[in-house]
Amino acid sequence: EIAEALRPQAERLLMGARVLLTAGPTREPLDPVRYLGNRSSGRMGYALASALVNLGAQVVLVTGPTVSPLPRVSKVIQVETALEMHRAVMNEVGECAIFVATAAVADYRPMEIATHKIKKDAAELTLHLIRNPDILADVAALKAPPFTVGFAAETENLEQHARAKLTAKKLNMIAANQVGGERGGFEHDENALTVFWRDGQCGLPMMSKTQLARELADLIAEHYRGHHATPA
Amino acid sequence: EIAEALRPQAERLLMGARVLLTAGPTREPLDPVRYLGNRSSGRMGYALASALVNLGAQVVLVTGPTVSPLPRVSKVIQVETALEMHRAVMNEVGECAIFVATAAVADYRPMEIATHKIKKDAAELTLHLIRNPDILADVAALKAPPFTVGFAAETENLEQHARAKLTAKKLNMIAANQVGGERGGFEHDENALTVFWRDGQCGLPMMSKTQLARELADLIAEHYRGHHATPA
Repeated sequence: EIAEALRPQAERLLMGARVLLTAGPTREPLDPVRYLGNRSSGRMGYALASALVNLGAQVVLVTGPTVSPLPRVSKVIQVETALEMHRAVMNEVGECAIFVATAAVADYRPMEIATHKIKKDAAELTLHLIRNPDILADVAALKAPPFTVGFAAETENLEQHARAKLTAKKLNMIAANQVGGERGGFEHDENALTVFWRDGQCGLPMMSKTQLARELADLIAEHYRGHHATPA
Repeated sequence: EIAEALRPQAERLLMGARVLLTAGPTREPLDPVRYLGNRSSGRMGYALASALVNLGAQVVLVTGPTVSPLPRVSKVIQVETALEMHRAVMNEVGECAIFVATAAVADYRPMEIATHKIKKDAAELTLHLIRNPDILADVAALKAPPFTVGFAAETENLEQHARAKLTAKKLNMIAANQVGGERGGFEHDENALTVFWRDGQCGLPMMSKTQLARELADLIAEHYRGHHATPA
């Protein structure tokens, strides 16, 4: 994949800003062979990373395992589990002005990981899971948090769930998309998003993930700059 | 990937034989986003499918979701879950002389699949799973079963587990490999196998999956022909 040309200087709204971005799924191993996974391809996050680079940002990408081509960014950290992603984010976030969490992080992981492949003959099996750390909430709860943008993949009540997450996790923005339908979202080349912030929202209709990423990057840059211009 | 040239006629030991082969992982959905998966890339199975085609076989491939390039075979059926794979195999097996089960089929699936993304706030979560049908055992238990070859990925006691499976499931052959080590197996380009049958075994040392597939295909062809030559 060839990187787009940088935008004209006047449009490089994030010149010099360091952005930490998570992308892809996490995998939570049950044993050396099996895992709990999710359908994130990483494509939306990677497209957004490229769009942010094109606005002049220095992007640090923390990504779960995908087969999508990695974007050209300043630094890539490849992880597998939610715990690994949490550790990488906490190590990097101090130097970043913006944090964008596009990764589909597993909410839960198996309580124990078996060293050997589990031998199972029973008709039923119970799997005990425990909650993973909430990376987004932990970043937003820092003493001096970066401008923080979350993502929400919802199958129902999009606005209600997204606004609840925006408030509960003290985010600056949240980009929400409807999943489970015929078009858009995980494993598709196009997507639609509704972006929410405290006193507003913006609908980005169904389009290619590349184009959508460009529009979302512009929105993030605009609000980030507005945020910094306004006295707290 | 370019298919190898067919072997000389004298070596085409499976000329006209119809072979049913499963490959890849299965995915067992928990909800529209999450699933239970495993690390099978499908590469070993696809390489074996190509090697069998090169021995003159007509191969019907039933495969779970992978990103590996599909081999050139007579027919490809793409499935996601163990139940879908079971159904496809049972539909096709009647017309096949040989069945080779390389797929890493999930032993268990979630008892219920949530239509909507599960909202979870608890610190712990219990997942209830039920056993999937055993495709290999169901095929071997048919009234007129095909010549049946199983695979076993083991992290310990390779021979013991493989021989137990050979007997319990009434297989003709089983190819076992050690997983969880530094080299070979899932997600690697090379592998080593030990192949067991009732009164013998053969070790195939670490080599490329393509070369290994060729040697395994030869072993299968040889034993299939011997099996048919011997009165029951």
